[in-house]
Amino acid sequence: MTQTMKAAVLPQFGGADMFEVRDVPVPAVGPREARVRVHATSINPLDYKIRRGDYFDHVPLPAIIGHDVSGVIEEIGGDVMEFAVGDEVYYTPQIFGTQGSYAEKHVANVDLIARKPKNLSHEEAASLTLVGGTVWEALVTRAQIQVGETVLIHGGAGGVGSIAIQIAKAMGARVFTTASRRDHDFVSGLGADLAIDYRAEDHVEVVNRATDDVGVDVVFDTVGGDILTRSPHVLAQMGRIVTLVDIPQPQNLIEAWGRNASYHFVFTRQNRGKLDALTNLLERNQVKPIIGATFPLERVGEAHAYLEAGSANGLRGKVVITVKGRGNQAS
Amino acid sequence: MTQTMKAAVLPQFGGADMFEVRDVPVPAVGPREARVRVHATSINPLDYKIRRGDYFDHVPLPAIIGHDVSGVIEEIGGDVMEFAVGDEVYYTPQIFGTQGSYAEKHVANVDLIARKPKNLSHEEAASLTLVGGTVWEALVTRAQIQVGETVLIHGGAGGVGSIAIQIAKAMGARVFTTASRRDHDFVSGLGADLAIDYRAEDHVEVVNRATDDVGVDVVFDTVGGDILTRSPHVLAQMGRIVTLVDIPQPQNLIEAWGRNASYHFVFTRQNRGKLDALTNLLERNQVKPIIGATFPLERVGEAHAYLEAGSANGLRGKVVITVKGRGNQAS
Repeated sequence: MTQTMKAAVLPQFGGADMFEVRDVPVPAVGPREARVRVHATSINPLDYKIRRGDYFDHVPLPAIIGHDVSGVIEEIGGDVMEFAVGDEVYYTPQIFGTQGSYAEKHVANVDLIARKPKNLSHEEAASLTLVGGTVWEALVTRAQIQVGETVLIHGGAGGVGSIAIQIAKAMGARVFTTASRRDHDFVSGLGADLAIDYRAEDHVEVVNRATDDVGVDVVFDTVGGDILTRSPHVLAQMGRIVTLVDIPQPQNLIEAWGRNASYHFVFTRQNRGKLDALTNLLERNQVKPIIGATFPLERVGEAHAYLEAGSANGLRGKVVITVKGRGNQAS
Repeated sequence: MTQTMKAAVLPQFGGADMFEVRDVPVPAVGPREARVRVHATSINPLDYKIRRGDYFDHVPLPAIIGHDVSGVIEEIGGDVMEFAVGDEVYYTPQIFGTQGSYAEKHVANVDLIARKPKNLSHEEAASLTLVGGTVWEALVTRAQIQVGETVLIHGGAGGVGSIAIQIAKAMGARVFTTASRRDHDFVSGLGADLAIDYRAEDHVEVVNRATDDVGVDVVFDTVGGDILTRSPHVLAQMGRIVTLVDIPQPQNLIEAWGRNASYHFVFTRQNRGKLDALTNLLERNQVKPIIGATFPLERVGEAHAYLEAGSANGLRGKVVITVKGRGNQAS
C-alpha cells in the first residue's frame, strides 16, 4: 500500500487561489538522497512567478513547488554517510526538475542538505535557505565585498534585502539601503548606515551626496524596474552591480565602460557549502532571520497573496509556512 | 631660452591628415615625474577615436596624443628614488589630462613608469604598454581566467587580440579565436587552439559544437558590433564576458541571469604593477610583441590610416612609430 502525505498541489498556473491541498504519494529515496519530514517552508518571489506561469516551460503540471525546507531526516539512501535519521536539517531543493517543499515530506540529494543552525526554530531556518544562499552567492561569491566598501542594497526591508544588510555588515561594509519611510527604523536596526526613502528622494542624488560623488562600490538590486539602468550613476570606479531580477527590456550600458564596472547576473544556485557558511554567522548571531508572517500549509494561497502585495502590507522579511505533519513535534 | 622638441600636434579633430609635426616647448619635470627621451610609440584604436573627436570633451586642442612610450630617462624630479637618468623604461601615459607620446620627449608621473624588458627593442616595448596593460586588466584582474578554462577571443590577429591569445595561453586556458581565414596560421602560431573564420562561419554555432553545448568560460570582446548581444549564447554557467568596445545601443541581457553570467566593462587604467607583471612574461618569452608595421613620427597620419583600415590591410598586431630624436641612439 502506497504511503501518502499532504501537499499543496498546483494543478494549473494562475492566481494565489490555485493551490489544492491533497494526499499524494510519499516520494521514494534514492541511494544519495534523504527524505525529510518538513516542519516549515517559506514563500519566495520565485514561487509566485512559477505559480503564475513565468517558468511554464520548466515546470510540468500538476506541480508541487516550494524552495525552502527545514525539518528532520526520516530516511536515508544506502550511499549517505554524512547524515542519519533524526538529524535536523535545512536546505533549498533543486530549482526545477524535482518536487518542491510545499508538502509534509520532501526528498533531496544530500549534497544540497545542511545541518540546521542549532539556535534557530524550523520556521526561522526555513525562512533562510533560498534567501540566505542567494545573498551569499550575490555578495560573497560574486560581488566579493571587501571590508570598508560601501554597498547600496535596494529593498532593504524585503526578504532578501533584510538578510543582505546583515551579511554586508558582517563583511565590514558601510550599508546604504532603500526602504519605505516607515521601515527606516527597522533597516537601521539591521545595521543599515543610511536609509533612503525611495518614494520621497531620488536615490542617485542621495548616494552621490552621501559619497561626495565618489559613488558606492557595490549595488545589489533585489527590486528590478529601472534600477539596473540607473545604477551606473551611483557606482564608483571598479564598482560592481549584482542583480537578481531579470529585465527583458534592453539596457543602455554606455556608462559602464568609463567606470570599469562589472555586472553580475545571479540566478540561484544552491549547495550545502553556502548554507554551512551561513550557519556560522547565524549561530554567532551575526545574522538573524526576519519573519514577517506565518501561515499553515493549508493557507499557502493566502501566504502567496500576502507576499505578492509585499510592502503594501507592511511586510518585513519573509512569509513562512508551518507544516503540522503527522508525527511532527512542535518546533 | 626655452628648449624645444618635435611633436605631432593635432590642431583640430578630424581625419588622419590632421597631424602637424612642429617644434613645441619641452615639458618641465615635477618632483615625482621623469622626462623620457621617446624612442618609440605606437598607435591604438583609442588614438584614432580621440583624433576624430569621439572624446572631444576630454581633450583640449591643440593636443599631443599617444598612449605608449618606450625610451630613456633624461631627467628626474627631486622626489624620484626608484629611477635614474639613463634608465630604459616603458609605460602608458595617463589617459586624458596630460600630453601624449607622439613627441621626442615625454614627462610622466613615475608611478606609471616601468623598466623596459631587457630582451625587447624600444619598438617592441612601445607596441605593448597600452595593449599589454589592457589585456592584463581584462584577463587577469577582471575575468580571472583559471587554468583549464576555455576562452573565446574575438579579433585574435589584432593588436589586442594577438597579445590576449598569448596571455590566455600563459594562464593555462584553451583558446578559441575569431580571425580571417588568411590569419589562421598566424593565430595558431600564437597558441590559439581553434581559429574561427567569422566571415564563413557563425561563431555561436562553432563554439557550441566545439564545446558540446557547454560553452566557453570567458569571452573577450575586442571588436564590438553585435558580439556583446550574442555572447551569452556561447557562455557556460558562471561565464564571464570582458568587453573593451563601448556600445551605445541598448543591449538585451535576458539570457545573462539564467547563466549566472558576469559582464566586465573595461576602460584602460594603467600602472607600473601591471607592466612589471607583463615584463616577467616577456622576459621569459611566454609573450612576444607583434608588430605589423612601423612608421617614422613624421608619417603618423599614414600610420593612423593604416591602423584604421585594419585587417583589410592584412595588418597583424600593432602599428609602431619610431622617433628619431636628437641624441637618440639606434635601439
